[in-house]
Amino acid sequence: MIRFFESDPYAPIQYTYEVTNVLYKHKSRFQDIMVFENPFFGKILVLDGVVQITERDEFFYHEMLTHVVMNSHPNPEKVLVIGGGDGGTVREVLKHRSVKKVYFIEIDEEVLKVSKKFFPKVACGINDRRVEIKCMDGAEFVKGRQSDIDVVIVDSTDIVGFAKSLFTKNFFRSIKNCLTENGMFVSLSESLHFHKDIVVDVQETMKSVFPVVDLYTAPIATYAGNWWTFSVGSKKLNPREIRRKDKIRTKYYSSDIHKSAFLPKDMYDKLLKRRLGW
Amino acid sequence: MIRFFESDPYAPIQYTYEVTNVLYKHKSRFQDIMVFENPFFGKILVLDGVVQITERDEFFYHEMLTHVVMNSHPNPEKVLVIGGGDGGTVREVLKHRSVKKVYFIEIDEEVLKVSKKFFPKVACGINDRRVEIKCMDGAEFVKGRQSDIDVVIVDSTDIVGFAKSLFTKNFFRSIKNCLTENGMFVSLSESLHFHKDIVVDVQETMKSVFPVVDLYTAPIATYAGNWWTFSVGSKKLNPREIRRKDKIRTKYYSSDIHKSAFLPKDMYDKLLKRRLGW
Repeated sequence: MIRFFESDPYAPIQYTYEVTNVLYKHKSRFQDIMVFENPFFGKILVLDGVVQITERDEFFYHEMLTHVVMNSHPNPEKVLVIGGGDGGTVREVLKHRSVKKVYFIEIDEEVLKVSKKFFPKVACGINDRRVEIKCMDGAEFVKGRQSDIDVVIVDSTDIVGFAKSLFTKNFFRSIKNCLTENGMFVSLSESLHFHKDIVVDVQETMKSVFPVVDLYTAPIATYAGNWWTFSVGSKKLNPREIRRKDKIRTKYYSSDIHKSAFLPKDMYDKLLKRRLGW
Repeated sequence: MIRFFESDPYAPIQYTYEVTNVLYKHKSRFQDIMVFENPFFGKILVLDGVVQITERDEFFYHEMLTHVVMNSHPNPEKVLVIGGGDGGTVREVLKHRSVKKVYFIEIDEEVLKVSKKFFPKVACGINDRRVEIKCMDGAEFVKGRQSDIDVVIVDSTDIVGFAKSLFTKNFFRSIKNCLTENGMFVSLSESLHFHKDIVVDVQETMKSVFPVVDLYTAPIATYAGNWWTFSVGSKKLNPREIRRKDKIRTKYYSSDIHKSAFLPKDMYDKLLKRRLGW
């Protein structure tokens, strides 16, 4: 059997996948890109040795990254997606009828091409007329931009390497500046099982910039630690509250999941004080 | 680096752990038993090549297996724990003041000995005066027993090999017969990510015996698929409802977690109809 050993130096459990076929393998300007097939997950996209999406379970991550802030915002028209070159987040954003414009900023053009070729059901929204693609650094795109975006979604790789710039106070300040009055921002923030300190670091940095900060989770089998977190920074509105009645087709996200995904208040408080006892 | 490759033939992702020290390795009458040390998880207990508990995260499983039914039952006095030779479930059961008697049925005496030696904080309740230990098959213990147990907790290994007898209709019938009027029964039922069909099979078998059946989940990093499920069979009472005000010390379980751990009704219905779309 041919096996793929995930090479995530920050994960205390290493994940190994059976490989039935390697479909793509190339080093882009930014990273190693690989696509292989697995009997259970279907096609799998790997960047720098770490699994990014699988055909079978990508919707857990994309739905949960997208719909919490999109349904909490009262009327998201202009949305900025940074990263997520596979297109899954853009696909989910476009399910909301209120959306008039999506800025889609991906640093690595090759990821877009690979996704269009091997993951058409993920990349399907990329060519929508509302989407404007720019292949550049997300931090550069938001720098100096003023108050015209309703929702910002950061869909980056893990918080190491070149994605690190997307988790700094400076970047969060630029995000806040480019948000409208009811603006909301969400970013992945690693696993509560494996990277609790990183989760709290991201929360603390967000809190130094945004008046409202919160945290929710989703179970994602293919991300190390699985109990995956999403950090929300909001200029005013509480992201636990759902403000839209849009009917959107999802496989996992629902209004019940929206509510139960947020940590109970007492656990959240203990987490931030680094007093969870585990 | 020395590595332990988990050998779970039913998991589409294989988990690998760093091994700093092997503390115990022996084949008992029933299974291979191993204890090793890992830099992140501390000591890890392995049965037949599959991780059972780790010092770092065992409480997620033991608290969630125990407290949902114990807090939903109005007054659990007599409790039966089948399996869980490490003692973690018994430790959690004993936190409830109402408990007067715990029958602790573990088929493999060697697991008890190994846990007492290497996991004293897990095994700590085993010698409590309320606990009666019997080293025998749980299915034999319940056969023909009549209406004297308030809560039954099955804490077995995965639903393969010799644990299979703990998931049959006959076994569930015996459990129901030994329960009191408000009696409740809970068992692990594998991962919603990796073993969805097994989850539904267990639910269907339970439904053929118990008037009330439900399902809740918990995030457990060291069990394959992580989004771990627990199946409840109840003679009358709804397990989503909390009926006790006992203050018990826990690290993860809380009344909020109790409520949000159950699948939203619409997702649960789709799961049972095998129509989740994933």
